[in-house]
Amino acid sequence: MRIPENHPRAESLRIRERLVECLRRGIVVEQGLIAHGRGEAFDYLLGERTTIYAREAIRASVAMMLLADNPVISVNGNVACLCAGDVVRLASLINARIEVNLFYRSYEREKAIEMLLKEHGASMVYGVGDRASMSIPELMSERRRVDRDGIYSADVVLVPLEDGDRTEALVRMGKKVVAVDLNPLSRTAKSATITIVDNITRAMPLMVETAKWLKDEPRDRLNEILRSFSNARNLEASLAVIRGSVDDMYVEREREGREGGR
Amino acid sequence: MRIPENHPRAESLRIRERLVECLRRGIVVEQGLIAHGRGEAFDYLLGERTTIYAREAIRASVAMMLLADNPVISVNGNVACLCAGDVVRLASLINARIEVNLFYRSYEREKAIEMLLKEHGASMVYGVGDRASMSIPELMSERRRVDRDGIYSADVVLVPLEDGDRTEALVRMGKKVVAVDLNPLSRTAKSATITIVDNITRAMPLMVETAKWLKDEPRDRLNEILRSFSNARNLEASLAVIRGSVDDMYVEREREGREGGR
Repeated sequence: MRIPENHPRAESLRIRERLVECLRRGIVVEQGLIAHGRGEAFDYLLGERTTIYAREAIRASVAMMLLADNPVISVNGNVACLCAGDVVRLASLINARIEVNLFYRSYEREKAIEMLLKEHGASMVYGVGDRASMSIPELMSERRRVDRDGIYSADVVLVPLEDGDRTEALVRMGKKVVAVDLNPLSRTAKSATITIVDNITRAMPLMVETAKWLKDEPRDRLNEILRSFSNARNLEASLAVIRGSVDDMYVEREREGREGGR
Repeated sequence: MRIPENHPRAESLRIRERLVECLRRGIVVEQGLIAHGRGEAFDYLLGERTTIYAREAIRASVAMMLLADNPVISVNGNVACLCAGDVVRLASLINARIEVNLFYRSYEREKAIEMLLKEHGASMVYGVGDRASMSIPELMSERRRVDRDGIYSADVVLVPLEDGDRTEALVRMGKKVVAVDLNPLSRTAKSATITIVDNITRAMPLMVETAKWLKDEPRDRLNEILRSFSNARNLEASLAVIRGSVDDMYVEREREGREGGR
């Protein structure tokens, strides 16, 4: 379907089309489309824009990843589909490894995602096939299988679009976790070390830009950025944005109702 | 994937699985999965339950359909997948015709949906193939094609899960439209004659029950139910529920932050 340029939701519709295309190519699974729709609704309540709180969380995340010994970016189908290029660029700027980690695991899908990442310039992709020989304790899904040289030995893991179980398990393993989640109330959002409440299609390019200007900063400065960040306060602020937008919609609705409602 | 019975979101996960299955069977399209995810998020904010306001809207809708001369239930892929049985039961109780109407139209999909409805006991399904020979003015998508003996000549149309353009077009044609939409702020919700802000998997069985106890009521009584209903006020009340739930979550988040936040 062709989407008119001036459609009010053109960008959002283009992203949908891209996911549908990725489903057909075996990169995304059906459940990924439903999860995306869920995110869309929260994005709508956020005003479909990156808040200053998301910017703060992005800055702190990039500082944390630059300070890490073994940072890893965990990639699932939706992330690969929507941000493969930015994942590769970010990994290169912050010296992170890239690992494919899927809830609905299949070798074909792992290979398809690996190929997509390589098309975007990744030289090495972890977690594919037999490489994923280690397990995250207490996790039952196929997602517990991780790469010994990737997530298993990482100190900081960026998990855009993660589920709550896995985020909690990674934190219990002593890892610092950065999550990107549009729902500030999700278990993922609450259990991550740093939660970026934003759409990954906006957050990932911003992370790349932020990495460019933070990568040569002294460690003291990065530590300072990190110390001044509170994830609990940041989540509260993001939730306040959603609350404010629902309030505004309510007031507008009330006014419309008074003016001419049935 | 097997879903444990005691999973907190078991019902929601089962519905997802059913939609994925319907996609594979050609009843649902990929875009339907994304739309479902969007609805899920609003349902989560509603507390995943049918509010008293949804019940009021259901009662008024059923009264309006019972008073109609030619009520029609419009069925798309998601509706067929999730509520084929209830659609057939409701149609039989209120003497409504059932019409297949798809945004992404294909003859194969129309036939698959027709067959599913017939498996659930429908004797006649409108809008399939050449039957859909009339057009809804001003609509550009394939969804404008309607059946002369179905939607085209209907006075009341129940359109669960409809888009804004089409709802507005039907209203402009002078039809009364009942929509089921989890987002009380959508164009569909605002332009429908009656909007049921609820999950169709809860609303449709309730409509069937309501039809059972309203179908023998005198017309005066049905008219009275309809007169006492205001869609603008009802939408405002549903939005207030969402607002209240976001407020509650915010207060809880604030408290958690004070008690032990990072």
